[in-house]
Amino acid sequence: MAERTHTDPEKMEKIVSLCKGKGFIFQSGELYGGLNGCWDYGPLGAELKRNLKEYWWRKNVQERDDIVGMDGSILTHQAVLTASGHVGGFSDPMCDCKVCKKRYRADQLEEVPLCEAKKQLPKGEDKRCELTEPKEFNLMFETKMGASADDDDPNAVAYLRPETAQTIFVQYKNVLDSSRLKIPFGIAQIGKAFRNEINPRNFTFRSREFEQMEIEYFCHPDDGMKLTDEWLEKRLNFYEEIGVPREKLHILDVPDGERAHYSKKTYDIEYEFPFGIQELEGVAYRTDYDLGKHQECSGKSLEYFNPETKERFIPHVVEPSAGCDRTVLAVICEAYDEEDLTKEGGKPDIRKVMRLKPCIAPIKAAVLPLLKNKPELVAKAKEVKALLQPHMNIFYDETAAIGRRYRRQDEVGTPFCIAIDFETLGEEGPNGEDLSDTVTVRHRDSMEQERIAISELLPWLLARMV
Amino acid sequence: MAERTHTDPEKMEKIVSLCKGKGFIFQSGELYGGLNGCWDYGPLGAELKRNLKEYWWRKNVQERDDIVGMDGSILTHQAVLTASGHVGGFSDPMCDCKVCKKRYRADQLEEVPLCEAKKQLPKGEDKRCELTEPKEFNLMFETKMGASADDDDPNAVAYLRPETAQTIFVQYKNVLDSSRLKIPFGIAQIGKAFRNEINPRNFTFRSREFEQMEIEYFCHPDDGMKLTDEWLEKRLNFYEEIGVPREKLHILDVPDGERAHYSKKTYDIEYEFPFGIQELEGVAYRTDYDLGKHQECSGKSLEYFNPETKERFIPHVVEPSAGCDRTVLAVICEAYDEEDLTKEGGKPDIRKVMRLKPCIAPIKAAVLPLLKNKPELVAKAKEVKALLQPHMNIFYDETAAIGRRYRRQDEVGTPFCIAIDFETLGEEGPNGEDLSDTVTVRHRDSMEQERIAISELLPWLLARMV
Repeated sequence: MAERTHTDPEKMEKIVSLCKGKGFIFQSGELYGGLNGCWDYGPLGAELKRNLKEYWWRKNVQERDDIVGMDGSILTHQAVLTASGHVGGFSDPMCDCKVCKKRYRADQLEEVPLCEAKKQLPKGEDKRCELTEPKEFNLMFETKMGASADDDDPNAVAYLRPETAQTIFVQYKNVLDSSRLKIPFGIAQIGKAFRNEINPRNFTFRSREFEQMEIEYFCHPDDGMKLTDEWLEKRLNFYEEIGVPREKLHILDVPDGERAHYSKKTYDIEYEFPFGIQELEGVAYRTDYDLGKHQECSGKSLEYFNPETKERFIPHVVEPSAGCDRTVLAVICEAYDEEDLTKEGGKPDIRKVMRLKPCIAPIKAAVLPLLKNKPELVAKAKEVKALLQPHMNIFYDETAAIGRRYRRQDEVGTPFCIAIDFETLGEEGPNGEDLSDTVTVRHRDSMEQERIAISELLPWLLARMV
Repeated sequence: MAERTHTDPEKMEKIVSLCKGKGFIFQSGELYGGLNGCWDYGPLGAELKRNLKEYWWRKNVQERDDIVGMDGSILTHQAVLTASGHVGGFSDPMCDCKVCKKRYRADQLEEVPLCEAKKQLPKGEDKRCELTEPKEFNLMFETKMGASADDDDPNAVAYLRPETAQTIFVQYKNVLDSSRLKIPFGIAQIGKAFRNEINPRNFTFRSREFEQMEIEYFCHPDDGMKLTDEWLEKRLNFYEEIGVPREKLHILDVPDGERAHYSKKTYDIEYEFPFGIQELEGVAYRTDYDLGKHQECSGKSLEYFNPETKERFIPHVVEPSAGCDRTVLAVICEAYDEEDLTKEGGKPDIRKVMRLKPCIAPIKAAVLPLLKNKPELVAKAKEVKALLQPHMNIFYDETAAIGRRYRRQDEVGTPFCIAIDFETLGEEGPNGEDLSDTVTVRHRDSMEQERIAISELLPWLLARMV
């Protein structure tokens, strides 16, 4: 699918730069020039991603009686992916240039490109590529396993899973037999998958190693279409809850002929990234294709028996499959803001702020003593930190002026700053009031401040983290 | 290291069988005969593992000011693992049999084994293997990346990381530059690593795909030895907290000549598994070996500058590195119990119970209406479930007699069962007391029961989950 318009490359550059500078996302193997299509999450990125996964799991597994989780291996038996069709068919058509030996995706060539070899040619002798016929290039990462891994033993071949879904399908029967589930029920999984994308691009959006958050929801054949629509609605609400508003999402009802061959219905949930409108999640009605194939290839029955109706059938599957890294990126893009706070006649003052929802913000609150050279302030601040830290991710900072510390926290999306000042220690308030054992809570988005009693602080914060 | 004695294969068999039967752990790709050395966590196993990882992260990252997290890619640049020594040296010596073509680990051959080819020979003509000289066999999983992955391009080679540690070392500078950390500080990571073990064995203990929970703790060269001892103590406490008592742990102070060449001190923390005393975690003082190597090979400075002392040095590293799957297995082995409740003259009654600590138990509480055909009981039970479910993993069960439901929960380690009975609905208690809106909480370990008001239930449970 070609990337559509509405792009803002300048904003994207700022986001990539902030992500590196603040420790959200680094290029993998950067020290050695980088590994194309692979990314490492730094301290804040790792927390953000953890929070997102945790929230997804809570909403889709913990809070539901009809969905259980699993966590399968990445290394995958070749028979699994032969049955699913990935070994034979999960490929892109590629052309080689006979001159420069470079490889191109046949479906992405708008015209025959300028040949790489031209760089070595005198000006005026630019060459165009001379392309071979397209050849299928499998997108799976292959490896060899076992004692014969360094031989040419075809049985030693295993794959890194190209989707988490197949892990669920091949364990569906074990899950069913070990649980008390009845159809309809779902199996959820968060985990890594790998695709050898020829052209990784758009920061973490199209990468070779990525994490999926998938549910395979098993149902009666009659209910597949209806459940696909219901899941679409649920998933749209989810994005709203984590800070991606409905009006920035687009629903693509993938038309006949463009869906995966096994799918009767597919919705793509797309988001307006700064680099174009791009897919975040697919809600696909996969029918009984996968279980049917695994039943056929394994020779083992994957039928479901309904003891009440005495019906026996291969369950149909509705799959809401979200890209975890893409969702992290969408959340960051959506949260990123610059606010012009320049006062008339004053110096330019642009406030960078990440308006992350508290439930996924990497740091929930920063505890800041007004001054670092007053031991009573520092001691009280550390007391407050110790009170909160067992319950949420707290950052403690005593360096620099308080205003600057507020701004640092704005930039990484911390929803609340808690300042410990002389009023906390018992000094009279501006109107003569007793403010001892209260703190100033400063709100990231409005920059408003309010006083809250230390004894009320934990429940006050917890209530805002949901 | 040879597996030591004190084995109980019968107990181990029961545990493996319970793990499959109750949905803790399945063989990966079982439908197709299984993928050797790879395991999938089922619904209860996935929750148990999640809880363990969450607990580790909370104690080692969230609750500490000096440790931050990261989450790096599995696919690793070959230059990273060349610098670390893995490409050249991470290998086992292997011999091939010239007759049967089978491969054996040279250091595990006690005598020349019976040749596989003997199976095809008439009795009495059993052959012994005729072995080649040992040859080094690299334990890393190799794959090819990029557009030339199907060619023989040596630049396309990438590896699945054999340890999470290297990901941390190569990002150490980025983490330092983007954070406000000062030495000593740590970077923590939980993630998968892969080793092509020739002989995976002992259930999930020695597998080819496994998850590590690692901290690289960066310090001044003078502090390495002392911090290694301190980390050992902290890690021993951790195991106690999750239910592995100190007396079942053994500390191996790895002697000179047996440590990794870069390590000045290594403690192995070992546990008495039913298959022998085996390593759970290594606490290794890795000196400045890794950062030094990466500085040398990348040509980029990895020195740390202390602005107070004006000292400039390559930090030394203390590494507590725990096996996540091994710890899950240790916790299961330790929790597994059989209690003889046979009454005099009665039928044999063996209670199987997993005495998991509440903080890591997959299900925190089961909500059980006394009878399923009384709508008031069911409605009240569902109300209680709805009250608790946003806060913890709750199981609802209305099938079978209450005693049987208790036993089912015992077997999967649920610490509390909450029964909703007629007293809950307002019926008088045995002594005429008003028990309305109270429930029976039944303790897994003691099987004792107590009445708790529904309004008190959530804080009561939360206080016991820490």
